Formats: sequence, C-alpha cells, structure tokens
Amino acid sequence: MARKCSAAWRKTKTLLLLLLVSLSVSICVCKTSEEQMENMENTIVTEKKAEESHRQDSADLLIFILLLTLTILTIWLFKHRRFRFLHETGLAMIYGLIVGVILRYGIHVPRDVSNVTLSCQVNVSPATLLVNFSGKFYEYTLKGEISASEAKDVADNEMLRKVTFDPEVFFNILLPPIIFHAGYSLKRRHFFRNMGSILAYAFLGTVISCFVIGMLMYGCVVLMKQVSQLDGDFFFTDCLFFGAIVSATDPVTVLAIFNELQVDVDLYALLFGESVLNDAVAVVLSSIIDSGADPSTWSRLNGEAVNNSFNGYNNSIVAYQPAGDNSHTFEVMALLKSFGMFLGVFSGSFALGVATGIVTALVTKFTKLRDFQLLETALFFLMSWSTFLLAEACGFTGVVAVLFCGITQAHYTYNNLSPESQDRTKQLFELLDFLAENFIFSYMGLTLFTFQNHVFNPMFIVGAFVAVFLGRAANIYPLSFLLNLGRRNKIRSNFQHMMMFAGLRGAMTFALSIRDTATYARQMMFSTTLLIVFFTVWICGGGTTQMLSCQHIRVGVDADQDNSMSFSEGSERRSTKQESVWLFRIWYNFDHNYLKPILTHSGPPLTATLPPCCGPLAHFLTSPQAFENEGELKDDDSDLILSDRDLSLTYGDVTISTDALGGHTTAGAPGSTSEDLDRELTYGDHELVMRGTRLVLPMDDSEPTFSRPSP
Amino acid sequence: MARKCSAAWRKTKTLLLLLLVSLSVSICVCKTSEEQMENMENTIVTEKKAEESHRQDSADLLIFILLLTLTILTIWLFKHRRFRFLHETGLAMIYGLIVGVILRYGIHVPRDVSNVTLSCQVNVSPATLLVNFSGKFYEYTLKGEISASEAKDVADNEMLRKVTFDPEVFFNILLPPIIFHAGYSLKRRHFFRNMGSILAYAFLGTVISCFVIGMLMYGCVVLMKQVSQLDGDFFFTDCLFFGAIVSATDPVTVLAIFNELQVDVDLYALLFGESVLNDAVAVVLSSIIDSGADPSTWSRLNGEAVNNSFNGYNNSIVAYQPAGDNSHTFEVMALLKSFGMFLGVFSGSFALGVATGIVTALVTKFTKLRDFQLLETALFFLMSWSTFLLAEACGFTGVVAVLFCGITQAHYTYNNLSPESQDRTKQLFELLDFLAENFIFSYMGLTLFTFQNHVFNPMFIVGAFVAVFLGRAANIYPLSFLLNLGRRNKIRSNFQHMMMFAGLRGAMTFALSIRDTATYARQMMFSTTLLIVFFTVWICGGGTTQMLSCQHIRVGVDADQDNSMSFSEGSERRSTKQESVWLFRIWYNFDHNYLKPILTHSGPPLTATLPPCCGPLAHFLTSPQAFENEGELKDDDSDLILSDRDLSLTYGDVTISTDALGGHTTAGAPGSTSEDLDRELTYGDHELVMRGTRLVLPMDDSEPTFSRPSP
Repeated sequence: MARKCSAAWRKTKTLLLLLLVSLSVSICVCKTSEEQMENMENTIVTEKKAEESHRQDSADLLIFILLLTLTILTIWLFKHRRFRFLHETGLAMIYGLIVGVILRYGIHVPRDVSNVTLSCQVNVSPATLLVNFSGKFYEYTLKGEISASEAKDVADNEMLRKVTFDPEVFFNILLPPIIFHAGYSLKRRHFFRNMGSILAYAFLGTVISCFVIGMLMYGCVVLMKQVSQLDGDFFFTDCLFFGAIVSATDPVTVLAIFNELQVDVDLYALLFGESVLNDAVAVVLSSIIDSGADPSTWSRLNGEAVNNSFNGYNNSIVAYQPAGDNSHTFEVMALLKSFGMFLGVFSGSFALGVATGIVTALVTKFTKLRDFQLLETALFFLMSWSTFLLAEACGFTGVVAVLFCGITQAHYTYNNLSPESQDRTKQLFELLDFLAENFIFSYMGLTLFTFQNHVFNPMFIVGAFVAVFLGRAANIYPLSFLLNLGRRNKIRSNFQHMMMFAGLRGAMTFALSIRDTATYARQMMFSTTLLIVFFTVWICGGGTTQMLSCQHIRVGVDADQDNSMSFSEGSERRSTKQESVWLFRIWYNFDHNYLKPILTHSGPPLTATLPPCCGPLAHFLTSPQAFENEGELKDDDSDLILSDRDLSLTYGDVTISTDALGGHTTAGAPGSTSEDLDRELTYGDHELVMRGTRLVLPMDDSEPTFSRPSP
Repeated sequence: MARKCSAAWRKTKTLLLLLLVSLSVSICVCKTSEEQMENMENTIVTEKKAEESHRQDSADLLIFILLLTLTILTIWLFKHRRFRFLHETGLAMIYGLIVGVILRYGIHVPRDVSNVTLSCQVNVSPATLLVNFSGKFYEYTLKGEISASEAKDVADNEMLRKVTFDPEVFFNILLPPIIFHAGYSLKRRHFFRNMGSILAYAFLGTVISCFVIGMLMYGCVVLMKQVSQLDGDFFFTDCLFFGAIVSATDPVTVLAIFNELQVDVDLYALLFGESVLNDAVAVVLSSIIDSGADPSTWSRLNGEAVNNSFNGYNNSIVAYQPAGDNSHTFEVMALLKSFGMFLGVFSGSFALGVATGIVTALVTKFTKLRDFQLLETALFFLMSWSTFLLAEACGFTGVVAVLFCGITQAHYTYNNLSPESQDRTKQLFELLDFLAENFIFSYMGLTLFTFQNHVFNPMFIVGAFVAVFLGRAANIYPLSFLLNLGRRNKIRSNFQHMMMFAGLRGAMTFALSIRDTATYARQMMFSTTLLIVFFTVWICGGGTTQMLSCQHIRVGVDADQDNSMSFSEGSERRSTKQESVWLFRIWYNFDHNYLKPILTHSGPPLTATLPPCCGPLAHFLTSPQAFENEGELKDDDSDLILSDRDLSLTYGDVTISTDALGGHTTAGAPGSTSEDLDRELTYGDHELVMRGTRLVLPMDDSEPTFSRPSP
C-alpha cells in the first residue's frame, strides 16, 4: 500500500510538472500571438486584427483555466495528504501570484503606440462611436473613462492590460453563482433559530464596522496629510467606502475546516449566516456611499472646487455640507435619506429575490415538470438567473436579490423538485461556485503584479489593518454582549473570539474594490484591500485549526457521541427553547400554516388553516398531496431536506417516537403547530446529532469538505 | 384522475398566462429603461450612461431568459400530452418570432442621433481607441466595420440593435457546449461499427453537397442577374460559402423522435454520426472558403477592380483567376492548396482535441481525484473548455477541437471518473446543451424580425430550397450506392429516404451565416438560411413520425421483441460481421491493446501487449486494476458505459455465457482480442436489444427524449 502510494505520488509529481510546462507553453503561446499581432498591426486589415485579438483573448483565458487546473490538482494532493493549512482559495492566490510575477517580469513586450490614437476633440462621449477611417465606418463601444496618466499606460503595456478583466465581469458573472450557492446552501434550521443574532451581526454589525473603519481611516488619512505621506485626494466618503467594502466577510476557508472538523453547528450557523448576509449589506452600503460620493453631493472635505455639471442626476442624495466648507458635521436629514435609500434598495432587492423564488416554487408545484428532470433543472437555473437580471434591470442590486432568491428556492422550491433535480441543481451550483471562487482568488493573486496602478502606502496599509481589526472587534464583542442579554443559549467568549478571528475578507471585498480604480484614493484602497485579503486568507485561514484548539472549541462533537450526548445535553438544550422565539415563532407559524402549503406539497392543507371565506382559493392552492399527508407527521423535517433527504425523515420520526415528551400531533389542526415548533426547537439539535453519525462514514470523510453546507 | 388532470391543465394555463404577462412586463421594463436612458443622454455623465447601458443589457437578456422559460413550460405541456409534432427547438423559434414581432412593431422608440458622432478622419482603425472629449480620456474598443448604409441604421433603431448579440457569442459561447455534448454522447459502439459510412457521408458527402449547392446557386445567381433581380454583388465564392454553411445538418428534432420511438440503432448512428461530423467539416470548409474569399485571392467573377491593399496577409491561399477575367476555370494548384489547408486546419483541430482528451484521461487515471467528485468534475469541465481556447489561440477551429475532445473524453476519460462524476458531467453538459440550443433557436425566431438588413429575394430563396434539396440528394443517394457495394448490411432505400428527409439545418448553419452579414450577398444568404432552418425544423422535423411510417421503418423494434428477435436476427447480424472490418479491426486492436490500457484502468496490462523492451514503461503506465482485471472478461463492455453502466456489464456477461459460439476468452493474452472483436461485432446489437427492454420502463418512457444519446 505504501509503495503504491509513493508510486502514485511520483506519478502525480510528473503530472504536476507536465502541467507547469503546459502552463508556461501557454504563456508563450500568449506571448507569440501577441507578437504576431505586433507584426500585423502595420497592415490595416481590421477583421484580421479582430481575429487576432480574439486569439489573444483565448490565450489569456487559457492561462486562467490552466491555473485553475493546477489549483485543482494541487488541492487534491493536499486533501489526499490531509494537509489543512492551505485552503484551495489560498492556493489559487499563490498560483495567481506566480503567474503574475512571470507575466510582469518574465515577458516584456514593449508596445508601439501606433495602435492608439489620441484625437477627436468632441465634447460628448457617446456609448457607441462610429468612426470614419478613410471612408470606412468602424463601430466602437465605450469601455470607460481613463485618467490621463493611465492613457500613457495603455500605450505602455498592452500585454498586462490584456490579462486584466473588465471589473464588471466579477459582479455580473462570477459573484452571482457564488452568492446564490451561499443562499441555496444555507442551513435553514440553524439559520432560522439564530436569526435574531445573525441579523444583528449582519446589519447592525456591518454598519458599525463600516463606520468604525471609516472613522479610523479618516483619522489615518488626516495624519498622513500632516506628515505629507499622501500624494492625492482622499475624502471622507472614500474612507466610508473603504469601510463598507472591507466589512464584507467571507470565511469560506474557516467554514470548510469547520465542516471537516464537525465544529459546533450554532457557531457555524452564526458565522455562515452573518457572512452571507453582510455581503449583501456591504454591497448595498458601498453602492449608496459610492453614488453619494459624487462631487456635487457629498462635500469633498478637502475643500476643493466642485464640478457641478454632475448635479442634474444625483440630486436625490444630498448628504453633507456643500463644497468649500471644511466641516464634517452630520446632517440628520442627509443621513436619514441615505438610510432610506439603503432600506429601499435592500428591500427592493429582497422582494425581487423572494418573488422570483416564489414564482419558481409555484411553477414547480403546479406543473408536473418533475417528470422531466432536464426541463426542471433548466427552469430552476433560468428563473434563478432571471432574478439577477430583473434586479439589475430595475436598478436594484442583483447580487442581493440572488441571495434571497437562493434562500427562497432552498426553503420552498427545493421541496417541489424531483430527487434527481435536487441533486442536479445542488451539484450545478456547487460547481459554479467552486469555479467562480477559485477564479476570483487566482485572479487576485495575478492582479497583485499585473495591475498597473498600485499605490502601496505603508502608513495607510498599517492603518487599514488596525482599522479592520478594530472594526471587526466593534462588531462582534459589543453585539455579542447585547445579544447575550436576550439569549438563553449564550454566545460564549471563545465563540466570540473565533468569530472575531474568522473575519476573513474574500471575493466580495475584492470585487467591490476592483470595480472602480479610477482615482488615487480608490487605487490605494484596492492595493490595501488585496493585502488584507491575502493576509486574512493565508494567516487567519491557515490558523483556524490552531485557533480552534487554542479556544478549546470542541471539534468532532457531533460525530463521536451521538445518542448519549444528545440526551445528556437534553436538559440544557430544552432550556434554550425560548431563545429568539418572539421572532421565530411568528415566522414559523406563518411559514408552516400558509407559505409552505401554498408553495410546496407539504404542510397542513390550506382549507384547514385559512379562514372559511377563502375556501375555493384554499382548495385551488392546496396540492392533493397535502390532503394525503394530512394525518402524517412530516412537515417539520422538510426543513432538513437540503442536506440529506431520506435519512432526516426516518431519523426525525424515530426521534419523536422514542421521545417522552412529544405526543404525536393530531391530524392537521392549526393548533398543533406550537407543538411542532417545540419539537423543532428542542430536537433540532438532537436530529442533527444523529445525522452526525452519517458524516463519518468513509465516503463523507473526504467529500463534504467542499460544499459549504453539508452536515 | 381525469379531473385532477384537467385541474392541472387549468392551473398550467394560468401559469402560462402569468408568464406571458411577465414577459410583456419585462419588455416594458426594457422599453422604460430605454427611455430613461434617452432622458439622460443629454447629460454627460459617462459612468451613469454605462450603468444604464448595463441595465438595458440586463433587460434584453431577461427577455431571452423568459422566452426560454416559456419554451420549457410549453414543451413540458407538449411532452405531458405526448404531442410530437413540434420539438422544443421549433417551439423556441415560434416564441422568438412572436417576441420579434412585438419588438419590431409593438414598441417604437425613435432614437435621437446625438449619441452617435460620425467624425475623426483618421486612416487607421486601431483595436483600442482613446478619445479625448474636452480634456477627458475615454477608452473605446473596436466592434467591427459597418457599411455606410448600416451607419444610418445605427442611429435609426438602437433598440433593435440592442437585442442583437455579437455573432461571435454564438461561436465562442453557445456552440462549444452543444458540440461537446454531441461528441460526449456519441453512441460509440455503433459509431465505430459504421465508421466508414459515417466518415464517407460526413467528409465526402459534405464536400459534394457544398459544391453542388454552390454550383446550383451560382447558376441561380447568374440567372437572377439576367432578369435583373440582383441588387448587389454575388460572387462564386459567396455561392460556395453558402453551400458550405447549409451543408451542416442538425437533425436534433428527428433524433429526439427516433429516441422516443426506438428506431433502428444503425439508422440512428448513421444520422447522428454524420450530423456531428459534418458540422465540423462545414465549419472548416466555410472558414477556408471565407478566408479565400478575400478580394485579392479568389477572383471576383463579376470582374471588378480588386482592392489590393489586403494582399499582404492572405497570400497563402491563392485560388482562382486574377481579377478582370470572367472565366471560372479551376486551377488545380489552388484547389490543392485549399484542400491542404482544409486538411491542416481539420487535423490540427482534431489533434488538439484528442490531445487534451488524452491528457485529461491520464490525469484522471493517475491521480486519485475520483475521491473528490467536485474537483473531478471541475477538472473535466476546465480541461474540455481549455481545448476550445487552445485551438482558438493556435488558430485552429475551437468547435472542431471540442468535438473530438468530447469523443475522446467519452471513450477514455469517462471510464476513469467516479460514478458520481460520470453523472455530474453528463448532466452538466446536457443542461448546457439544452440551454444553448434553445437559446439559439429562440434567437433565430427573434432575429427574423429584429435583424435590420434582411434581403429576401424570392428567386434566390426558391433556388436555395431546390439547391439544398438536390445537394442533400447528391450526398445521400450516390454515396449510399457506393457504400452498399462494400457493406454487407446494406443501407436500405427506406433508410436512404429517411436520411434524405432528416437533413434539417440548425444551430450551426445559423451561427455560420450570422457570423458575417456585412455585404449584400451575406445578408441575402442569412435571410435565406433563416427560412431554410424554419422550414426544415418545422416541416421536416414535424413530419418525422409520418415519414417513418410512410417509409415502413419499424419503430419500437428493440422494445417489443427482445430476446426472441435478436436470435431470429442472429444469422443476418452475423453475416454483417465483416462489414467495414478493415478499418474497424485495426482501430479496435490498437485501441484495445494500447490506448485503453494506457489511458484507462481497463484492458489487458501493457506488460502483456507491449514488446518486452518497453517493460519498465509498460509497468509504469499500467494501472494496478488492469493486473487485477487480467483474468476477467470486462473490457468490451466498457464501450457501453456511457449509456448504462451497471446493466451493460451484467447483460454483457449473460449474453456471452448463454451463447453457443463465443467461448470465453482466456486471460488477457494479446491474441484473444480477435475473439473479443468477433463478439463485439456479432453481439453488439444483441446486447443493445436486451438493453432495449430497459428503455420502456415507465421512467424512461418520458425521460430520454431529451438527451440525444440515450438507449
């Protein structure tokens, strides 16, 4: 066996070497086609040039594909050897860095400037430009504004610019599947149980963190101005914007390890729920600060003249003092307006996401689409995608809409799908998430060397690290203290430390910071953000196991002691019953009595829960299955379906029948739901503990590390 | 039950209505955001404009998503009611047409011309243009050349132009998954058995068809000139190009019905194999004719002056007489050169596709990646995608490379994958294929009304229909006659008629014709191609069932008489044993003895098949499983794995043990392969017949209609 293993190891090494070679070959191809393009530039054959540019694009994309392939192989090796210090995202960054160094220093193609003409003194900038070159018309599309200094770079290093993607790619192509997957794989039972705390951390915490970081950075910037370390403008709104983008945490690395080590499910739910929701909060927050940061609206604190030609468009958000005034007093009205906008955008996106989720649930409920899995999966995929597009078309935030669509789909639609489609959709989004995430992280590594306008300011960087640390602390500790006043199941201090430590920054922070790198301030932010992401992913991500043992957080809890433990813990658990019930109970009743019966095949029939006047409607909406299920004790398990469909049902029933307390609920009378709820609250964990046994089967030992959701 | 059904029907109708409403709402959104953009255009806020343009794009894309959703729901209804006259692709076209009509006539947004400036008299057309608008630099990227007449249209109807995608999207995003899926789901056993015939139809047949159609169209064009029906230039090369693009058949509709009705597997294999390969041939052919069609190289037969500034680039393909000469004599050298180029591009793409397939097979064989299904699937997906990019970067044809990569992946890599990944990859590409195909077809419908430069010339259209018919006939009948001389298992005349009838045109023809619509000739071709696709998909596709019964082609053969039939047919089948063996036997031996053992875990160990001098290498390459399998009779079934993994193995063994002829092959000696081959040839069908029984289980009755491969 050992011999076999080492042989496999040797073969793998050979393969990795081969892949490295092929990567360098592809970089050469990329270079050659670059050169070919060079030689051709003198001819005027536009079509051919477009073709060459396409070849170049293919070669560039190929580099990333090979990078990802390399990452996959290496990460397999790490997993194979149970090497836990480096997560795949961290590895993707390292490979990205290496290729970035090669592209930057290894290949130098000085470009002739001939292909860039600087002319045409017109005073509008149309989206489509028709240019008449010696009698022929060529169509050009606007890519964006660039600063005069960049204009030189365009000529200087076309090559590096070529491997640079349009930042909007991240927002419109790569982030949506990641965020949807996060929503789709949210562990709903624990999410809803800890809903109050999660919402507090995500909303209040992110806002606190944003402002704390913003204030600290503003102090830092002012200090830098004093010692003349600042070479450009840096306004207060820039600081706030920075606060918003670095407040989006992404503990994917940590959660992967949590999953592997079977860490406490509540801690998992808190961290995951918070990170999913605070992404949404940070996106909306930053977009509002950003749109408010236009010259005419928020005063530039340095007191410069403001170009008022922009005034016509942004007058909806007037925030701070007019220009020329150096004060930064808060105007209550302005703050309220911003807050109103935040609520508007957020709730609009939320409503859209939930709405398309509900439509999908209705469609899958009332058509018998489940007979045709391909159609079902395709419909699911298209509806989820249309959420994003619809939100963007309406001016809301697509990413946020997609998140809530994912949660709705998981909660309702998923139950209507055929088992095959359940697998298919899960696997599809898991794959998309994996690819997108690793692409973003390897691009991050690459961009450290290939991005043209880095501004590394040591003072700012140190300031940012301190601010990020303090901002996270100001989020976690005070809120935990407040939450513990209301919670019976306290968030213990070692949990708090762990949450503090797990405040990694990832894909969302990167995507937000690369979106706009036009000004000096934004460039400095971008460079600093990159470093923060690198540090947190490598250091905090790599140190998770150490931190867990250092904080004495039990690992493998659910796996080792299933029944025995759950019963010994039973009394403690039961005492947590009332925790956050005020929110949960209302939600649970409404969901169980109305939403589930309307949107899925489970739950009590609507004819029983709705007032008699709605009789015909109730009959129309209730599915035949609901009447059939009426006598059965089935509904409370449907929550668990996402993780393991069949087992949860069985175990659920076992748990209840062996239980001293929970009398079988009697046939669908509305009143019975409170007992359901009790059971839900009391035995949620019990079931999970039992299901924990499943996770240590040889198969699962290796597999679920990848999927954030799992146990 | 009937009441339930009609209730479901009513609900579905309500849902469809709802969806139609949402579609129209989204079109309105699309319109509104258009108008909003209008209002804003007067301000100079470029960023905001880019944002609005993004919103517009989202709305446009949303229309397509909703169209696809509608198609899915309707097609479910059709399938549910077993309505076979309209395939999903045909339906997608109809919906596309409807939305096209609405966009064209329902919404009229006259555009102000202010956003398009026609200026800048420079004499180069760079790929990137920096424009200095009153001190600010804006970056523009080249989209392509447009004719002066189009330049007006750009101003006229921005709206319709907006829903028009960049034609390259079809080639670089939508076609690759379709083609890969075709390769990946090729029924390899029957494909290889009929390899000779398929290659003849695909290569020889497509070339014949291309030239016959080209000649006929040229005659037609000359005639049109005589009666002054032609308003622009139409050269011989244009005719040939037209011949090439309409020679790519795509009988997806027909094959779906074949699948459902259990039509003869050989007919299925012939049609499917031909259509898959002739796509590749047509792509390469058309690209060579197209690049040869540049002014300086192929003479414009109408004798015009030739713009020789293009000369520098295309001198590799000099084909016909120089300009000014009205003759169209073939120059043998030119033809040979074109042929050489065809071979070069084709074999280059082929080699690349096979190479990446082999690399994937090796990687999946030698790493234990199968323990981590997500990594495995991701690797498979990335490697397959990189084939496309690599081919495009090297100047070969990505689509062709992807096709052969798919075939290689199915033949080797698939066997190395874990069962979960086998399912995942199959389902993933099935979904991508489904979405891409329906997207293309609904876009086709849309484009009939939204495309700005249609040239419908009745004479040309009639001529094209006749030419397409005759071209197909000139492909099928003579070749079948010639092939029947060599084949024992004759291609009967009703099979020939069916193949003739099944010459539908689809996605590939459309993608090729929309790629370039700059000249009058190309516009006329595009319009005509659209009509040909519509006609063939609706009429030929819809009439498949009638045609089958009219030609007395037995349906449901495999389903009804399983064992009995196969034995009665045994003698006939056995006589077909030698058919195309000269090609098949060489291939089979090589594949079985060397390729399979190297690339997969199956087959005899290499130490047995390779000469002793290669001992260490052979030992290194042979997987431990191969040694373990040595004594077992396993290999010949691995061919069947794609369709049903477990069953084929069992049935395969049963077949052999109950057989009077096939003695068990004795343990892995190289000589035994000829017996394997005999079995393969003789009992391939037998096994398929037995497996046919599986296909009529209630489940499969509905399901496999979607996947082209299946039984």
